[in-house]
Amino acid sequence: MFQTLSAKAAIQLDQELMSTGAFSIDQLMELAGLAVAQAVYKEYPPVTINDKVLILVGPGNNGGDGLVAARHLKLWNGYEPVVFYPKKTAKPLYTNLMTQLKHLGVSEVTELTEVKNLLSSGQVKLIIDSLFGFSFKPPIRAPFDDLIKYLCVNHDKIAPIASVDIPSGWDVSDGPVGKDMDIKPSMLISLTAPKPCAVIAHTQGVTHYLGGRFINGQIAAKYHIEELIAKYKGNDMVVKL
Amino acid sequence: MFQTLSAKAAIQLDQELMSTGAFSIDQLMELAGLAVAQAVYKEYPPVTINDKVLILVGPGNNGGDGLVAARHLKLWNGYEPVVFYPKKTAKPLYTNLMTQLKHLGVSEVTELTEVKNLLSSGQVKLIIDSLFGFSFKPPIRAPFDDLIKYLCVNHDKIAPIASVDIPSGWDVSDGPVGKDMDIKPSMLISLTAPKPCAVIAHTQGVTHYLGGRFINGQIAAKYHIEELIAKYKGNDMVVKL
Repeated sequence: MFQTLSAKAAIQLDQELMSTGAFSIDQLMELAGLAVAQAVYKEYPPVTINDKVLILVGPGNNGGDGLVAARHLKLWNGYEPVVFYPKKTAKPLYTNLMTQLKHLGVSEVTELTEVKNLLSSGQVKLIIDSLFGFSFKPPIRAPFDDLIKYLCVNHDKIAPIASVDIPSGWDVSDGPVGKDMDIKPSMLISLTAPKPCAVIAHTQGVTHYLGGRFINGQIAAKYHIEELIAKYKGNDMVVKL
Repeated sequence: MFQTLSAKAAIQLDQELMSTGAFSIDQLMELAGLAVAQAVYKEYPPVTINDKVLILVGPGNNGGDGLVAARHLKLWNGYEPVVFYPKKTAKPLYTNLMTQLKHLGVSEVTELTEVKNLLSSGQVKLIIDSLFGFSFKPPIRAPFDDLIKYLCVNHDKIAPIASVDIPSGWDVSDGPVGKDMDIKPSMLISLTAPKPCAVIAHTQGVTHYLGGRFINGQIAAKYHIEELIAKYKGNDMVVKL
């Protein structure tokens, strides 16, 4: 179907990009977050939204990708990003990303009850799930457990979900975990390469994009994702798989 | 014609983006360099190049934008970037940008004679001039004086030039300086906003793009460039002026 990267290989490639490749996390996150925003734009253009987009932000790099995506969406007319970032990472990159958003007038909700109210109000037309990425390991801690359960139970009543890299809460390799904790995204944006659980999402009919165009064919071949990387067209930063 | 930013105002806005705005130089340069590469792609698509693109890299931020552009062009099929970066900046961001290019297989020429040979060979189909930006102050030091003179004297025999932010050597406000030292770019990519000399280039018929989409209408209004920023369409990172 398409080549994938295991969680272990994804960690190795990330490390290679930042060591031998000499990329800074700022650069990689900027390109990843931009790709997320561009994929969202393609699938949910402004005319279909013209209202709030709720960005659910986790404590790690996946959350940072969501913050960058929120910034780009804010600069494109037709999206009103609102950020929920309950467990803030105390690193300059992350505090700066939040300052950038405030400087641009992006609003934040801080309480889970506000998130639930916003979702049930119908004002949120799209949810970006940037809670957990490929290095996530269970259990899901508060308040994310409650949040994910809410998204699952209310699936039919709330906006569609676009998940960043993996559907949050899913096992990176095996996908759904059961117990009312499996979110059902409408869209998945795989970064660098799909993780194994993306095959399950793809097979279930989830709209699937690839973004994070950092590597050339030679490096891709080393990780057995050269056919995948060859799918990018022209100067596009994302490709629909 | 279009709103511009004086060198002084451009420095102020840059400082605001990095202080109040909390942007890192890595983030701004990544977006600026990507915009340069995207504008080049629009105006000189791979089918018109399919050969070497020579990136002339100066010692400051303008040079850094060129290095980022070189990286993106390398990842898009149809461009073979070659970098000339004779006065390397000893800051991690710059050494890392060069390492990234080497990791991706981008080649470098180190001697001005090699540059001249390459240009006269006809293998270079486009020159990206990222030598000096809006904070440049004369005089032009070696080897850039000789390089710029070569580009001027041989204008009709070498590849077209795409200048980043300002045509290198031009006065930021007043444009051409005379004395066989005025390069004639075919294309100009203004970053954040055109500087006053861009009006002269534009009037002379230079193909003119705007890139570096960092700010919203409110911040733009403070710098009197709100009508300019409103020219961006959809999720485009560049716009032809």
